[in-house]
Amino acid sequence: MRNMTHYRCTLCSNVYPYDGHTFTCPKCGELGILEIEFAYAQIGKNMTRESLIANRDLSMWRYGPLLPVDTSRSGEMLKIGWTPLYEARRLPELLNVKKLFIKDESHNPSGSTKDRASGLAVLNAIEQGMNTIACSSTGNAASSLACHAARMGLTSVIFVPKRAPVGKLTQLSMYGAHVMMVDGDYKAAYQLSKEAIKKHGWYNRNAAINPILVEGKKTVAMEIAEQLDFRPTDWVAISVGDGCSLAGVYKGFYDFKQLGLIKKIPRLLGVQSSGCAPFVTAWKDNKPLQETEENTIADSIAVGIPRNPIKAMRSIASSNGAFIAVSDEAILEGMKLLGHYEGIFAEPAGATALSGLIKALEEGVIKHNESVTVIVTGNGLKDPKNAQKTGRPPTLVPPNLAEVDKYLKENGVK
Amino acid sequence: MRNMTHYRCTLCSNVYPYDGHTFTCPKCGELGILEIEFAYAQIGKNMTRESLIANRDLSMWRYGPLLPVDTSRSGEMLKIGWTPLYEARRLPELLNVKKLFIKDESHNPSGSTKDRASGLAVLNAIEQGMNTIACSSTGNAASSLACHAARMGLTSVIFVPKRAPVGKLTQLSMYGAHVMMVDGDYKAAYQLSKEAIKKHGWYNRNAAINPILVEGKKTVAMEIAEQLDFRPTDWVAISVGDGCSLAGVYKGFYDFKQLGLIKKIPRLLGVQSSGCAPFVTAWKDNKPLQETEENTIADSIAVGIPRNPIKAMRSIASSNGAFIAVSDEAILEGMKLLGHYEGIFAEPAGATALSGLIKALEEGVIKHNESVTVIVTGNGLKDPKNAQKTGRPPTLVPPNLAEVDKYLKENGVK
Repeated sequence: MRNMTHYRCTLCSNVYPYDGHTFTCPKCGELGILEIEFAYAQIGKNMTRESLIANRDLSMWRYGPLLPVDTSRSGEMLKIGWTPLYEARRLPELLNVKKLFIKDESHNPSGSTKDRASGLAVLNAIEQGMNTIACSSTGNAASSLACHAARMGLTSVIFVPKRAPVGKLTQLSMYGAHVMMVDGDYKAAYQLSKEAIKKHGWYNRNAAINPILVEGKKTVAMEIAEQLDFRPTDWVAISVGDGCSLAGVYKGFYDFKQLGLIKKIPRLLGVQSSGCAPFVTAWKDNKPLQETEENTIADSIAVGIPRNPIKAMRSIASSNGAFIAVSDEAILEGMKLLGHYEGIFAEPAGATALSGLIKALEEGVIKHNESVTVIVTGNGLKDPKNAQKTGRPPTLVPPNLAEVDKYLKENGVK
Repeated sequence: MRNMTHYRCTLCSNVYPYDGHTFTCPKCGELGILEIEFAYAQIGKNMTRESLIANRDLSMWRYGPLLPVDTSRSGEMLKIGWTPLYEARRLPELLNVKKLFIKDESHNPSGSTKDRASGLAVLNAIEQGMNTIACSSTGNAASSLACHAARMGLTSVIFVPKRAPVGKLTQLSMYGAHVMMVDGDYKAAYQLSKEAIKKHGWYNRNAAINPILVEGKKTVAMEIAEQLDFRPTDWVAISVGDGCSLAGVYKGFYDFKQLGLIKKIPRLLGVQSSGCAPFVTAWKDNKPLQETEENTIADSIAVGIPRNPIKAMRSIASSNGAFIAVSDEAILEGMKLLGHYEGIFAEPAGATALSGLIKALEEGVIKHNESVTVIVTGNGLKDPKNAQKTGRPPTLVPPNLAEVDKYLKENGVK
């Protein structure tokens, strides 16, 4: 199959030839998450810094040779990827950090970084002749899947836990998805989706066990590398739920390093909410992951049983990175800082990386003279309810200039 | 001043030399909205089809020579413009229209086409050494202004009417704007902003009377022209409130025609909600605009007293276009069609252009063999409340496969 050579099981390290539709290790079962390996020597002949700079396909599909799908119909899709990488203007001084970049994934069609994985899944389903595609999700995986399925004429069936925020449910409704709102938590929604997918033979877009999805997510790292002239920052910070996006970021830099496009993989900072931080706990205690409660406003990363622990743990270890946990209050503060100082409105999980950076600077994990990229994973409009807990509220005034002047004086506005 | 030659009053046609800060006609007062004219012969020497194709600045600032601001600091701004133009995949068959393109403005930083005008205003304020920038707005003009002001370190003061939808108010709060929520309608908010701006000497980003703003909005038309290889569709449809965006679209095509970049200005379809359709009424009756009620879910175009009537009316007349009104029900249906068939989630005013196209096809105003571009002016996430009135709602299920199967059978999902 083109550029993919084989699967490697993350658990037993056994290798299997690439066939395009195996999900988990035949020997280890569902815990045996597979990794896809590529023929780098062959790909590197055509994918060079020069070829990338000259490539005018400003979407994730520019990395076609490194994607495990047939991209011939990618031009029909909505535009995913090549999201802006902004150099922060005002936050570096405030936070006392040398160089700070913000990768703004809210520009994707459904407003989150999950569009990258869902876009790949939809093309993969089409390639396999499947018409229905399903997943369980706390929100963004689902809304992105429904979005791209709608565009390409596939049916989507989505299993969500009851607490999914209104913005994301509204997206599903507008994209015409069939939404099963499961009376239970993410675990219950996941279990039910698994049974239904098996029974009905739908395409499975559950991120952890479908090995191609991380290959979509990796494109965010490749873009960061390219947008920084192939010299990525010392650190890249991202929020962590299931562990798949973190694993994707690592894989993107890994692929680019294999191709000789970058010299070094940045150190990765995986940030969780302290209300649901199984990775942070396991990493600090050097123990296997334990199921934890899902007690955070950052719904996109509220995953009590991460289904991709091995890849995520390895991403931190191999990059000489760190896990860190931040409180919900710190996440709200991160949202406010991004909005007030850079004009970027992130959902809670989208601002979590910035909050993690602030804590990592305080704790000396990241030094003030290091450079950092934070990935804003999702659009704040998806979750107005939590955003209303922070920011500057409106002031109700009668249509009367004296009242306005009173406010201005009290608030030092000139 | 570089490429701008003079102002022309839309009311008395008097001409004044361009100085960069005059707002309205010295003779006619506030009704004398000014138009900016450019030195096309001079600009055309460097701005050609070839130079544009080679231009790798994929933002609205690629049109710098046609913009009345100093763009030297545009690289510090968030990325505005060069939003995707999608060829519709599934709607053309459903609607029986030959070719349909969708210009998706929801990809802009604050999620609407207003970012184009606000970006220009912020650069203009900086150029003039002003630190506070203000406007009254039903929402998107305000949220876009607050967004770009935050990024560039300016203070924003925003006057909104009480009915502004939650998504947009949340944006203002997150961007740190000082929001005066005026106990009254848009008219009251506008009047109060006018008084406060005058008293405090702030930069005035009220769209109708600030002649540079339409020059920001025009870039959406230029992009459409470029993205269609300089052969725009027969028609371009856009929702109309104040009339400024419509005037901007016309101006963009007009400038490109003056430069010889396109042969013909597309016919423009200006679409209003029948609950607030002063332009449609005036156009059909061939009478001056009358103040009307603001009775529509499409808050972004709920403007009972449009402040830019002359430019907007001329845009329709000069392009041999038409005004049309659609009901709120038709707008909700347009939202559903865009989401279900193309994966695009628009706010009510954002889907209004599509609803207008459907009606124009029914009435024979637009022929089935003509090509059309609809401009989706804003992101649906800004107004989840109205979106919840349409689309496919979620189904609450117990964690039980039998209940899922029952739903699937009833809804014909395979």
